[in-house]
Amino acid sequence: MIFLDNASTTRVFDEVVKRINSTYTEDYFNPSATYDKGMAASALIECSRQTVATALNAKKSEIFFTSCATESNNWALNCAFKNKKGNAVVSAGEHACVYETAKHLKDSGYDVRFAPLNNDGSVNIDALVDLVDGKTNYVSVIHVSNETGVINDLGRISTLVKAKNPRTLIHSDGVQAFLKTDCDLRRLGVDLYSISGHKIGAPKGVGALFVKSSVHIAPYLFGGGQESGMRSGTENVGGIVGLGAAIGEFSKVYDAAKVKKLYLRLLNELNKIEGVKIIGDTERNTGLICCLSVPGVRAETLQSVMADDGVYIGRGSACSSHHSGNRVLENMGLKKDEVSGAVRISLSPLTSEEEVDTACKALCKNIKDLRGYQVG
Amino acid sequence: MIFLDNASTTRVFDEVVKRINSTYTEDYFNPSATYDKGMAASALIECSRQTVATALNAKKSEIFFTSCATESNNWALNCAFKNKKGNAVVSAGEHACVYETAKHLKDSGYDVRFAPLNNDGSVNIDALVDLVDGKTNYVSVIHVSNETGVINDLGRISTLVKAKNPRTLIHSDGVQAFLKTDCDLRRLGVDLYSISGHKIGAPKGVGALFVKSSVHIAPYLFGGGQESGMRSGTENVGGIVGLGAAIGEFSKVYDAAKVKKLYLRLLNELNKIEGVKIIGDTERNTGLICCLSVPGVRAETLQSVMADDGVYIGRGSACSSHHSGNRVLENMGLKKDEVSGAVRISLSPLTSEEEVDTACKALCKNIKDLRGYQVG
Repeated sequence: MIFLDNASTTRVFDEVVKRINSTYTEDYFNPSATYDKGMAASALIECSRQTVATALNAKKSEIFFTSCATESNNWALNCAFKNKKGNAVVSAGEHACVYETAKHLKDSGYDVRFAPLNNDGSVNIDALVDLVDGKTNYVSVIHVSNETGVINDLGRISTLVKAKNPRTLIHSDGVQAFLKTDCDLRRLGVDLYSISGHKIGAPKGVGALFVKSSVHIAPYLFGGGQESGMRSGTENVGGIVGLGAAIGEFSKVYDAAKVKKLYLRLLNELNKIEGVKIIGDTERNTGLICCLSVPGVRAETLQSVMADDGVYIGRGSACSSHHSGNRVLENMGLKKDEVSGAVRISLSPLTSEEEVDTACKALCKNIKDLRGYQVG
Repeated sequence: MIFLDNASTTRVFDEVVKRINSTYTEDYFNPSATYDKGMAASALIECSRQTVATALNAKKSEIFFTSCATESNNWALNCAFKNKKGNAVVSAGEHACVYETAKHLKDSGYDVRFAPLNNDGSVNIDALVDLVDGKTNYVSVIHVSNETGVINDLGRISTLVKAKNPRTLIHSDGVQAFLKTDCDLRRLGVDLYSISGHKIGAPKGVGALFVKSSVHIAPYLFGGGQESGMRSGTENVGGIVGLGAAIGEFSKVYDAAKVKKLYLRLLNELNKIEGVKIIGDTERNTGLICCLSVPGVRAETLQSVMADDGVYIGRGSACSSHHSGNRVLENMGLKKDEVSGAVRISLSPLTSEEEVDTACKALCKNIKDLRGYQVG
């Protein structure tokens, strides 16, 4: 079985499982309890918070744990932007959890403006900056596209936006970027940044929101006052400890040069297959997500016959399997048959050259079969 | 070490840990992915949903998984009530995650009315029903008090409220009640009900909200459309599987008759200790939470010296350790020194008679010392 779909990512690291299990059976005390065992659980959380902060070049007090990046992104939009006097500029290439939240706010009467994408999958920075005005209090641009792996130039975006309106907050969904490209938030100049655990070998069910110390946003959940009163609720100690531990484990196995080499090998093999079109910028790319299209072949069918051969590839966003079409690819100007034939091959730090070769061989065979069938 | 604080509850059951680990290392696929491995992960979630539904005498489609009961309760209040034309009646005995959310809404201009408590810790039903009028669209009453273990008569409350205004939704925070007292939601007549995993031997970081099928509330998180579009975000598969598994494991070890016997033994021992006052109704009580006060002794000190003796007891709500005072006990009419001297001893299905006896012996010794010291 070869697994090349970033929607599911890698399994949880063994060392991470071990650390999480200790929170289930030994350090299972309530971090809010005021006795020693509770304080020890609280210390585990703070240790993880420091690890996340360090990875983002942030302060510990700027990191708030959440249940997932969808929550982080909903929180950011609802509590930092929601203001009928101002407006928000959101890229059309956002993940559903930003895009649908923005769309819901727009439908509710808020002024939300969508910035178009370039053909290469990046946001059109000129068009985005044009949409910013004196009343713009929020800009949201995904750091790395979950569809194409394309990296948006956050540093340039925040510089240009702040030059036009220094009061505009810059938010970025960093789920696919975290630990996989430059995430120095001070250098990137962002004010809010969302990450998720399950994209780096931690379990599902944990994420975080970075909120720059100079930025004040409303609390998200009310109650016992956990997370400095910003996100109440008994802390998911296992998930939080897992997120911290996964940062260490991921960093041990992640080798950017190796990934780049593997990505070039993949592109090279794909270019040999007749009928395959590579989608999106392959230079400004993490190299971990490769979007390709086989016009005339249905992506569902291709994904399914590949799975029959033991090769799991992605298609659209798994998170959008409940929606139809593919907003991001359509916005990049792809034709209808290119969109319906688009699949995604994702690499992980643990993917081998042999896996890439086997996957490409299976892809070549299946595309030949399907094209022959659909043409003939 | 004897552990008698429901704020931290029991450790995660071994069988539950095993089941969760399999979602970390084997069934770690994205439940939204459309290939077989993704569908298998989705099936695990649906199986857990059925288990929760069965335990509540609900339909599977009425259960929505969340990250914790605080989220469930915030969701219920924000999406079912939030309406400037109507009003909500909320008991003064609610957990912070209902009370603070209600208070925040009240501070934002919504009409929220707080129903007082009786001296025995239950909500004053007559006063509550008096506050309900033709514009009341929401009533929230905690099922079992996290402070006193007292059970509110939800069946009677929903009958009387609906008789006065049939359109009023009844919400209850069932965190301390779930599996520990009658939770047949059809019989109790509630429309919304919140539960948490970590009070029944599942890990922290997972909860659920029951929404009666005839009730329409707004979605809580926007994005990929998970949880039937009501709560987007990649599902916490491990936590959800853990919640389902814990229901089975908890039910195996929970013996209501044994708990009652243990509770009576505890009450009997406590009654022998000079200076101890039992707080709240001991008849209409799950028997799992016993609140007591030693007027003149500071609860922090008592909790601390007990922990030095290896006996961990509770104090206020751990979730309220970030707030001062004790709103619930104050509302029950306790005097200032009774509130400041209140601690909580919680039993679990695994607590033994010996543990109760040892705890009471330590309590007796420490109270004697502290009272002697503070009087002398």
